Order: sequence, then C-alpha cells, then structure tokens
Amino acid sequence: MNKNYKDISMAVIRRLPKYHRYLRELLDKDIHRISSKELSAMMGLTASQIRQDLNNFGGFGQQGYGYNVEELSGEIQKILGLDREYNAIIIGSGNLGQAIANYAGFRKFGFKLKAIFDTNPKLIGMIIRDLPVFDIDELQPFIIKNQIKIGIICTPKEFAQDTANKIVKAGVSAIWNFAPIDLKAPEHVITENVHLSDSLFILSYLLSNQEKFS
Amino acid sequence: MNKNYKDISMAVIRRLPKYHRYLRELLDKDIHRISSKELSAMMGLTASQIRQDLNNFGGFGQQGYGYNVEELSGEIQKILGLDREYNAIIIGSGNLGQAIANYAGFRKFGFKLKAIFDTNPKLIGMIIRDLPVFDIDELQPFIIKNQIKIGIICTPKEFAQDTANKIVKAGVSAIWNFAPIDLKAPEHVITENVHLSDSLFILSYLLSNQEKFS
Repeated sequence: MNKNYKDISMAVIRRLPKYHRYLRELLDKDIHRISSKELSAMMGLTASQIRQDLNNFGGFGQQGYGYNVEELSGEIQKILGLDREYNAIIIGSGNLGQAIANYAGFRKFGFKLKAIFDTNPKLIGMIIRDLPVFDIDELQPFIIKNQIKIGIICTPKEFAQDTANKIVKAGVSAIWNFAPIDLKAPEHVITENVHLSDSLFILSYLLSNQEKFS
Repeated sequence: MNKNYKDISMAVIRRLPKYHRYLRELLDKDIHRISSKELSAMMGLTASQIRQDLNNFGGFGQQGYGYNVEELSGEIQKILGLDREYNAIIIGSGNLGQAIANYAGFRKFGFKLKAIFDTNPKLIGMIIRDLPVFDIDELQPFIIKNQIKIGIICTPKEFAQDTANKIVKAGVSAIWNFAPIDLKAPEHVITENVHLSDSLFILSYLLSNQEKFS
C-alpha cells in the first residue's frame, strides 16, 4: 500500500497509538479477527467512529468478517512510521531518564537507544540499562557521528532549553521532552512535550467537581 | 467567586494546565500583568482563542490593561481543584514510581504523597524520597485508614488491573495510571491513563512524514 496519508487530520492520527495498543493486545491474546462493534466496546469509542477512523487508511474491514487484526495493526505501524529505525539518546540519567531507558514499550518499535548523557561525574562511564553514560560535553559530536534522530530530554527544567538548543544545533530531527516547560525549537524540528502534571491536574479537576456536584 | 464551572467543555478544561504552567512561569519572572496578545505569542494559541477560553471563567481581562497574572493563575488553580488537598499513594517503586515520588511539580499543589507500595521484600521498610515503602499486603488497610483519594499506578503492565481493582475496592476516588494499558474502573472512579509511548508514536509519525514529503 502506498497511500498518501498526508491529508488525514491530526485528530485521527492522535488516536492511532490507542488503536495500535489495543490491536497489539488482541494479537498477544491470539485474536486475529475483530468487528468494529467489539473493538468499540473494548476501546470506549463508538463503532461508527472506529469505522470512520479506519476508513481513512483504506478498507480493512469487511462486512460480516470484521477487521483482520494483524493486517490492521501492521498498517497502523507503517502509518506511524514504526516500521523504520530511529537512533535516539537520553539526556539526563535521573529516575525519569532511567525509567525511559527501561521502558520496553517502545524499544521494540524501531527506537534504538544509543546512550545517556549527564553532567554528574559519578555517573559518567557507567552503564545504565545497557546504555553507556557519557559526559554532556560529548553530546554534539556523538549526535553527528551516530546519526541521532531523536533527543529525549529528561533533565531538570532549568537545563532543558539549553540542552534542546545544543541537540538541535547538532542535527536531531525530533525532541521528546519530559522537562516541565514547552521547549522552543525551529519549525523543522519536531517537538513532543510530555507534561506529566497536566494529566494530574485534569484528574484533580474531575475529582473536585465530583465532590462539588455530587 | 462561586461560579458553576460544570458547563465548561472538557476541551477548554484540558487547556487549563497549560495556562497554569505559563502563568506560574510569568510569576516566577515577577511579571504580574499580561495582554492576551503577549500570552498568545508565548503559548502558541491565537489571542482570540485565549480570550474565549478565559471568558469562560468570568472577565479577568480588562481592555487596555490585560490580565492580572496572579488573579488569573489563582482562579485557574481553584477551577482545577489545586487549592484542595488530596492524599495519594504510589504503587510500584521502580524508576517511574521513584520519578513520580521525586517530581516536585505537583507536590506543591495539594497532592500529599503518603507512601509507596511494592512487592519486593528488599525494598519494603526503606524510605524513598521521604516516603516509606510498604508491602502491597498493607495497601487496602492503609488506603482506608489514611483516606487516600488518589492511587498512582506505576506497576508493570501485568499487575496494573489487579492493583486498580484492589485500590478501588478500598475506596480511592481516582487513579493516575502509568502502566501501558487502559485500566477498567467503575464509573464513579476517575481514571487518567498516561501512555508515554503514545506521544512517542506521534513523534514517529511526524518524523516519518517529514522524511516522506520533504
């Protein structure tokens, strides 16, 4: 399949990782065929939403048969670019950096972690989760030499923007940022900011409203 | 102010943590007044979007003056329920659990971490980031005795649903889940699932499209 997926709305794209997750779970359970109705019950989306979403990528569903889980999952992986390989590094070897290094969930989908960088002399030279820890001074030459595409920022907030500037200058194409600020980067650099407290604050909102209105 | 905020759409609510973050940063820099135009440039939203969003909570902005940062930030905190206190526990003392324990970002907004629970006998009895580590067997009595409202699940995927069932039974009102599955819980229990790989997969999508179409 060689479709042009460029026109699919980001709202649909942002739901794809969720489809991917559920389809992988079905495969783990050895389930190879599923109807939009069953998928809908599992995922908490309407069956019509699911059909609409998946129609964007061509007709995987067949009337009376449902979806072929393996085919659909494979196609979603392709759309998400998970069939490619990207070299990545982590900057910051605190708990969060280590949790990311340890996170099997994405290691198997083409994200090749190559090293961790830190400023702490006690950690430099160590191996954390199979990854060598290098001095932050080696960051830029390492990125260039190893064709690093993704920089994962797990530094404290106050070093995050400076780190981003450095890795952008050395040529990364994308930043996955866990520091609690929105990083500024040139337009050609893709930036995903993960703000852990945002979702906690939403939870707090729902909790306080439940108390107020019940 | 004693407004009924119940009718505000979740789309607006989901943007509030971002407003909160930027307003706190302004206060840190001792900036106490800001126009929707300046806020728009900082946040990457249109000025009209900002005015619309903030109008939902009453008129904080004044023509020719802008917004009073402190007032606005305080009101958003109230709306998000960050002026209350919630007792919380972490289940799972791996890197992610420790990263959460260590995350100052929310400790100051009324989330009172009380303990960490784990199954690993080597860790039980230890203190991690000021928090005692207890045996998972003590989970339910602890929740009841300490009026724990929020359970933060940082266990491996395969224990997450079972953990959720236990803490729901003991009476938590909300679950903040970091295990890579969507937890099932009764409707009265608020559940926020944080799927780290979802945002990485979006980054991968953008990266692979940049390569395809540039």
